[in-house]
Amino acid sequence: MNDSYLNFVNSPFGARVARSLGLPKPEVLRRYRADEPEFGGLVAIGAGREPHLLDSLADLVASIGVTSVAHESAGLWMPLAHRHGLLTGRFEPAESGSAARVGALIFDASGIDDSTQMEPLHAFFHDTLRSLGKCGRIVVLGRPPEACASPRQWTAQRALEGLTRSLGKEARRGITANLVYVGEGAEHEMEATLRFFLSPRSAYVSGQVVRIAADGLHGVVNRVAVTDAGGNAASPFDWNQPLANRRAVVTGAARGIGASIASVLAAQGAHVIGIDIPSARDALEATMRQLNGTALAFDIAAPEAPAQIAAALDDHGVDIVVHNAGITKDKTIAKMTGGAWQSVIDINLCAQERIDDALLAAGILRDGGRIVGVSSISGIAGNPGQTNYATSKAGVIGRVQSMAPLLRPRGITINAVAPGFIETQMTAKMPLTLREAGRRMNSLGQGGLPVDVAQTIAWLAHPGSAGISGQVVRVCGQSLIGA
Amino acid sequence: MNDSYLNFVNSPFGARVARSLGLPKPEVLRRYRADEPEFGGLVAIGAGREPHLLDSLADLVASIGVTSVAHESAGLWMPLAHRHGLLTGRFEPAESGSAARVGALIFDASGIDDSTQMEPLHAFFHDTLRSLGKCGRIVVLGRPPEACASPRQWTAQRALEGLTRSLGKEARRGITANLVYVGEGAEHEMEATLRFFLSPRSAYVSGQVVRIAADGLHGVVNRVAVTDAGGNAASPFDWNQPLANRRAVVTGAARGIGASIASVLAAQGAHVIGIDIPSARDALEATMRQLNGTALAFDIAAPEAPAQIAAALDDHGVDIVVHNAGITKDKTIAKMTGGAWQSVIDINLCAQERIDDALLAAGILRDGGRIVGVSSISGIAGNPGQTNYATSKAGVIGRVQSMAPLLRPRGITINAVAPGFIETQMTAKMPLTLREAGRRMNSLGQGGLPVDVAQTIAWLAHPGSAGISGQVVRVCGQSLIGA
Repeated sequence: MNDSYLNFVNSPFGARVARSLGLPKPEVLRRYRADEPEFGGLVAIGAGREPHLLDSLADLVASIGVTSVAHESAGLWMPLAHRHGLLTGRFEPAESGSAARVGALIFDASGIDDSTQMEPLHAFFHDTLRSLGKCGRIVVLGRPPEACASPRQWTAQRALEGLTRSLGKEARRGITANLVYVGEGAEHEMEATLRFFLSPRSAYVSGQVVRIAADGLHGVVNRVAVTDAGGNAASPFDWNQPLANRRAVVTGAARGIGASIASVLAAQGAHVIGIDIPSARDALEATMRQLNGTALAFDIAAPEAPAQIAAALDDHGVDIVVHNAGITKDKTIAKMTGGAWQSVIDINLCAQERIDDALLAAGILRDGGRIVGVSSISGIAGNPGQTNYATSKAGVIGRVQSMAPLLRPRGITINAVAPGFIETQMTAKMPLTLREAGRRMNSLGQGGLPVDVAQTIAWLAHPGSAGISGQVVRVCGQSLIGA
Repeated sequence: MNDSYLNFVNSPFGARVARSLGLPKPEVLRRYRADEPEFGGLVAIGAGREPHLLDSLADLVASIGVTSVAHESAGLWMPLAHRHGLLTGRFEPAESGSAARVGALIFDASGIDDSTQMEPLHAFFHDTLRSLGKCGRIVVLGRPPEACASPRQWTAQRALEGLTRSLGKEARRGITANLVYVGEGAEHEMEATLRFFLSPRSAYVSGQVVRIAADGLHGVVNRVAVTDAGGNAASPFDWNQPLANRRAVVTGAARGIGASIASVLAAQGAHVIGIDIPSARDALEATMRQLNGTALAFDIAAPEAPAQIAAALDDHGVDIVVHNAGITKDKTIAKMTGGAWQSVIDINLCAQERIDDALLAAGILRDGGRIVGVSSISGIAGNPGQTNYATSKAGVIGRVQSMAPLLRPRGITINAVAPGFIETQMTAKMPLTLREAGRRMNSLGQGGLPVDVAQTIAWLAHPGSAGISGQVVRVCGQSLIGA
């Protein structure tokens, strides 16, 4: 739970040692704190030809209350920003020492429809990257390739992946880079996602590609909308308490990542129902007491568990289900018992299927709801000694992909997060060399924290994330490891 | 071009040193040689419940002429094999010292339609993996998840990815593991693909997932079929010379990977038209002379190149187009000139688009043809210092995905290969530590050879690969690096 190298090289003495020896110096990541402003610094805007998203970007910049500067590639930004009454200026390269003044780089590539038009991407990042401060944010916006009208446009949009992932690996200094594909009609549904990627909440999420589709479900979302004092429909949620009036089930909530998920969801206003095995009842109850939540001590692998959980939730229903509970029983397959294989598959995968089916069949998971499964980089890339775990976690990806279209008519989204190396009691027990390799083999040069996984789940559970479904988001600091 | 560590630890003295120091000992990979039998050793067969592909597997086993042994999970195999007149037996775990007798493990998982049914996968690989010899082959067969009838089936089939990739990382000893999803109706179109994955031709391809769709284009394929002496339609191709009567264009063919591609295609019977820049004319002509090919010295990036190439090919048409030509101009984006950005995008991506469009518009690329683009792991994972290259290579993936459905009615497939660390003159010039990291960070513990890329392209160009389109196959020894 303690990255002593990270602490050392970020101490005054350690920083001198690291510099003189040429050692890598991972940045202490800025993370969300309720007592600090969430967004800071200038936002530099760039764009390719005929950008489609600048209008929505102007809304976003107004909503989060930052000052924007327009790179010369975004000629349209200045008049637009003025129309929106925004503070804005032209991007000027930082003089030495003033690099920290830009907090985020956003490039609207949605208008690029041919691979011959990609030069503005170079111009923008060439000019701006050095002005981006520590823990800065890079967001590239495009159109979902598979929805493009022509192969040329699809190709150019798909090429953005290679750029964004390279920028994430090049930028260092705690900077993240992510690519958001905004579907036709979803132009005004990107705020929750852009807020997440611009915020310190996404500290450990980099190199990811997210698609936002037009959800077409405003009615469903508004059914649970807040109404103001006069009974008028107000904004469907409060950005500070987006999960207010939502009920969230979290499995494996007694401690570790699960407790962190419960805590973040509660901080965003949700009433949390934490589930964990009976032997963890004391820890679970203590965690839930702190959050004013509800503790349910069930073994989710038991045959009767789905019915028990459904019965316990029946009165009030539930809006958010987070399948976090999971186990490992690592051995090479030649040495793995059938029991170790089967119990990992059963708890990590089959139990999720049984519980969701019970909650969906009885209508306990309400329309407009959210399901988030916890997968793993092992499920994406495979891992020696984890055939059982990787199989189960790859299955979680299949589950999310297969269920998303079926749940769409009810406005329910289903997504997965895939953690990389997260500092937990489990990783603290790893052999030193393995632990150090896991920590350093990513663009941020360090492990993530449980709260990084939790914040990512909270974003997917957000009422503003209705257009995101069937997707897998890694929380891995852009780990080198993949497939 | 010379992996001295690999050579050292595989020498009698070096092997002793490696053993006593506990150093890793990557296996010298077995590669295809015309003077050695392509398939050897027993093939052990396993299956999950109600397997759909055993019948086709029996045809394959008969066709390649090996002896099969049935694991107890594949109870149906014995009677089936007897009906096919195959030599077969029951799998018995190897006694110590006899491990090399099994050459391949094939598991038919196509009948698994729920995550609760995955135990036979464990039983099979638990029992057999230690009996698999050096440079052995693991092939898992399933159904394309996205085509499954139920979410449960989709989930279980998708879970196979995690298993296969873990097996690839666990197996070592030069063993590869790949997953083939066989679509409904494509049961009898898997031979070319299974031959490739079972053969030493796929020495450096591991951890890959390939989909075979029913091509529905037998007419197109048979149009160019060989007829026997009596004029009857015979097999549409000869397994020993599958590219006979095919004409193949290869760009960047003067040397390196391109020359190897040209050579392998020629060895399989194709007439090769090699293209390279005018300054490489001598090398190109020498290479083509050896292969009885045709040399075309054009700069593919020139505006007139597509028309020139089309004109040069117009008389006879062409069946196979391999876009291998590519350049790198590495710099961090802050230091990269606009020219370096644009020339890499233009040569690696835009030129492919222009040339294909010219060949397709004029009907020069014949129905039933094959296009293969060379992408890169950098295009998948991004790479620091290669924003231009990674963007271009990600674009190649977009191109393949976008064009596949459009070319389907003409029976033309389009796919990409994504090489990892391949031993070339370029990698020989890398700094030692970078080169060593690239070589070792994959499941096979070594770099690949140009011929590994070439053989993979030849498989995609094969007349029996009609059901494979829009896909990206890494030739990377299952590199750790991914996305």
